[in-house]
Amino acid sequence: MRLTLDRTSSIPFYRQIAEQLREQIRSGELPPGTRLPPERRLAAMLGVNRTTVVSAYRELAAEGLIVGHVGRGTIVAEPQPSPQPLGSSVAWAQFFTPITTVMRDPLLYDTMVVSARPDVISFATGAPAPEFYPVETVRALLDEALHHEGQSLLQYCPTEGYPPLREAIAQYLRQHGARTTAAHVLVVSGSQQGLYLLARALLEPGDVVAVESPTYLGALHVFRAIGARFLPIPVDRHGMHVSVLEDMVQRRRPKLIYTLPTFQNPTGTTLSLERRQRLLDIAIRYQIPIIEDDPYSMLRYEGPALPSLLSLDTAGIVIYLSTVSKVLFPGFRIGWVVGPQPVIERLSTLKQLVDLDTNALAQWAVWAFLTRGLLDQHIERLRQTYPVRRDRMLSALEAYAADVLAWERPGGGLYLWCQLQDGLRARDLLPEAARHGVAFTPGESCFPDGGGAEFLRLNFTYPNPDQIEEGIKRLAQAIHTLRANRFGRDRTAVLARPLV
Amino acid sequence: MRLTLDRTSSIPFYRQIAEQLREQIRSGELPPGTRLPPERRLAAMLGVNRTTVVSAYRELAAEGLIVGHVGRGTIVAEPQPSPQPLGSSVAWAQFFTPITTVMRDPLLYDTMVVSARPDVISFATGAPAPEFYPVETVRALLDEALHHEGQSLLQYCPTEGYPPLREAIAQYLRQHGARTTAAHVLVVSGSQQGLYLLARALLEPGDVVAVESPTYLGALHVFRAIGARFLPIPVDRHGMHVSVLEDMVQRRRPKLIYTLPTFQNPTGTTLSLERRQRLLDIAIRYQIPIIEDDPYSMLRYEGPALPSLLSLDTAGIVIYLSTVSKVLFPGFRIGWVVGPQPVIERLSTLKQLVDLDTNALAQWAVWAFLTRGLLDQHIERLRQTYPVRRDRMLSALEAYAADVLAWERPGGGLYLWCQLQDGLRARDLLPEAARHGVAFTPGESCFPDGGGAEFLRLNFTYPNPDQIEEGIKRLAQAIHTLRANRFGRDRTAVLARPLV
Repeated sequence: MRLTLDRTSSIPFYRQIAEQLREQIRSGELPPGTRLPPERRLAAMLGVNRTTVVSAYRELAAEGLIVGHVGRGTIVAEPQPSPQPLGSSVAWAQFFTPITTVMRDPLLYDTMVVSARPDVISFATGAPAPEFYPVETVRALLDEALHHEGQSLLQYCPTEGYPPLREAIAQYLRQHGARTTAAHVLVVSGSQQGLYLLARALLEPGDVVAVESPTYLGALHVFRAIGARFLPIPVDRHGMHVSVLEDMVQRRRPKLIYTLPTFQNPTGTTLSLERRQRLLDIAIRYQIPIIEDDPYSMLRYEGPALPSLLSLDTAGIVIYLSTVSKVLFPGFRIGWVVGPQPVIERLSTLKQLVDLDTNALAQWAVWAFLTRGLLDQHIERLRQTYPVRRDRMLSALEAYAADVLAWERPGGGLYLWCQLQDGLRARDLLPEAARHGVAFTPGESCFPDGGGAEFLRLNFTYPNPDQIEEGIKRLAQAIHTLRANRFGRDRTAVLARPLV
Repeated sequence: MRLTLDRTSSIPFYRQIAEQLREQIRSGELPPGTRLPPERRLAAMLGVNRTTVVSAYRELAAEGLIVGHVGRGTIVAEPQPSPQPLGSSVAWAQFFTPITTVMRDPLLYDTMVVSARPDVISFATGAPAPEFYPVETVRALLDEALHHEGQSLLQYCPTEGYPPLREAIAQYLRQHGARTTAAHVLVVSGSQQGLYLLARALLEPGDVVAVESPTYLGALHVFRAIGARFLPIPVDRHGMHVSVLEDMVQRRRPKLIYTLPTFQNPTGTTLSLERRQRLLDIAIRYQIPIIEDDPYSMLRYEGPALPSLLSLDTAGIVIYLSTVSKVLFPGFRIGWVVGPQPVIERLSTLKQLVDLDTNALAQWAVWAFLTRGLLDQHIERLRQTYPVRRDRMLSALEAYAADVLAWERPGGGLYLWCQLQDGLRARDLLPEAARHGVAFTPGESCFPDGGGAEFLRLNFTYPNPDQIEEGIKRLAQAIHTLRANRFGRDRTAVLARPLV
């Protein structure tokens, strides 16, 4: 039995031990009947706590790989004849509804696969820096919550949300100028759920949704799955081109306007105050509800804070979405929809079908983060850290990729939006980048109507500064390789002929 | 300032303190500028921990009711001119899609309202006994999880679920005879979400679903919202009348069969082994997928364990649903769908739209409950406790209500299914029962096609034995009152005439 622990790895020791033993049992290196060292001895040998070894043994026992025998210690189990896993003679494809077929994006799937490789530096995710997750605060809060209110927090929760959290969210928004009360708030299982519920409550197949082009790709998936059509509105340095919307609105009659006005995903741009007013005017004049998706406004590094559409709204036509996923961590799955009461009531009836209610314990913790100043403190820390990473990415781009990429400097949020030069396409770059050990999100997935082949979205919050430097170096090399190959091929370019 | 603590209440002290202070501030009894006692002194006065008072003050400060001043202590704040809360000039009703309008059931809403009254003994819920929630175990597990794997458990989780939990569920089901692997398992946010995803993936408007009549009311809501029609199959002492299904299946061509074969909600009946085989035969012969909803089989008090449809399935036509909500507690929102891989893949694509993924920390805790024998231990305890409550309910019914109700004795699960005699209707009983301080679920909400007016569903796990005794006494009085009034009125009965 060989066991080595990697003390620099983020994989917990008990997992490392279990993993290696599992491998050695499966390979036959530790044959059935082999006696494993007692927990205490193995712990001493490896220099870890006994509970670490206990956890590892437990995991293997649960998988049936080892068994404990009184008087004989822990033994590698006889392999059990594993039953033929369940197949299916049913032709399932014929049973599935059309809604479930439209949302597969092979390009994104490839991106996720590359992004998950341990040797790859990923700029593809939308996650905050994991090393800043306030794990110990969460630990203390959950302990307190279970101590004080365990029984009621493990019970079903009202569908609309844990009442003190609804009040705290309303209060937080009031402090930022919105005239909200708890009755305007629905707590949801991540803002993705809010988006889904809204799409279900407001859109039918064939309805038109005005969206920024490009926009959040998860929103495009939701709208497409319902059979909506898009009215794409271009984005410039000041956010959505509201005058284009104005020109189109009478002809296309959108049922809904979906926008990320602040530090937009993926472009990082922010809608100017003047355009905010104008957008609201259009919405009110033509009676088109606005969904304001606002996960990023708290992550502002420069420039003045602009009022949300929600807080500018005097007519009750804005429905606002936010989440703690980008400012604390995504694992709690807590987001909120804020809007006029008839909307909140309708969405909560729908949420009752979809999943009844949201984890009350997680809601309690978010309530504590909000009301005890812990969220503000945490965001303050991120606002020190993230601009450093952004600037590191900008200077690395300047150093290594200035000849092949163009970009803008965002004043907040998580992303840099880059444009490949010389007609190169991000989907061709993806496999080349994978070979160089770096991943990104291809921009075309963010466009409602095709196009955008030359764009890529780079996240600068998940990787640390050294990884950012190294990742951009790799990315630049990949682009240079792609360009060299491309221009090699282009000399013998063949014009596309129609296939007949 | 008057403060009294109710030491027998389940409301935590800090909430009691905050509540009373809030009331006194709002009523003007504690006017703005009033200095509150220092935390330590108030704690001593009340005989509680200082942290209890700190928590109470924090809550009031978060609401803007009190403020801390350096050197002056804690002061009641000046009331802030509260802005006019946001109304809406938008005629929202015209914007909502039809799906969101079908699922309002005023009868159930009334039931929930009555059930939530503190003076009411509720037999209406579907929750386990809260006093047995393993709060301390959960506390220790979450602490361990955050200590060992905090960072990764607060991250996004794969949509299909936390891999070790998928494996543990597959293993648990293998031990009960199913041929499942982790790839057959999708972790969902409560089995309600599994049901919703399945309905979305498999049903289109107008499709027919075969259901037991009566059945789980939440399933009826989901199917109705999608525009499905029902093929209701009656239930007798041995579960669904499978021969009726067989007679109807060719004429009505159901797209799906939805069944709760074990300790059915609401009737408590269990499908016999012979009928299980026959149901599978029909499903395979006519290629109709079965959804087996199985939240209750672990709560078996008597009789032999019957194999699940999943474990009898040789063709891969069964999709299985379960949850920890009925055996541990509902607050984690963890359930699972188990079925053929094409189904799991399709559902997980859909789940990505609906809420991306499920809380990983809660999944870790459920994994620990399953793999460390903690779930089995807990269920063992419930299997000692619940039959006592059931029998207490049965003997109370015998003592107080034998002349007005008929019932069956269930061998497991959470519910007694009762039938009013003399043509009385549960919907008429509901307000009378509310006046007597008792609540139940009206049976008619469980019927797909109207009817069932004389049935009521009584939960015997949530209230404790004394509450059960008292609640049945109140219920019997309410029925007697209703009957007296009814027969009073009936003497001057007016025949219904058609309205022309």
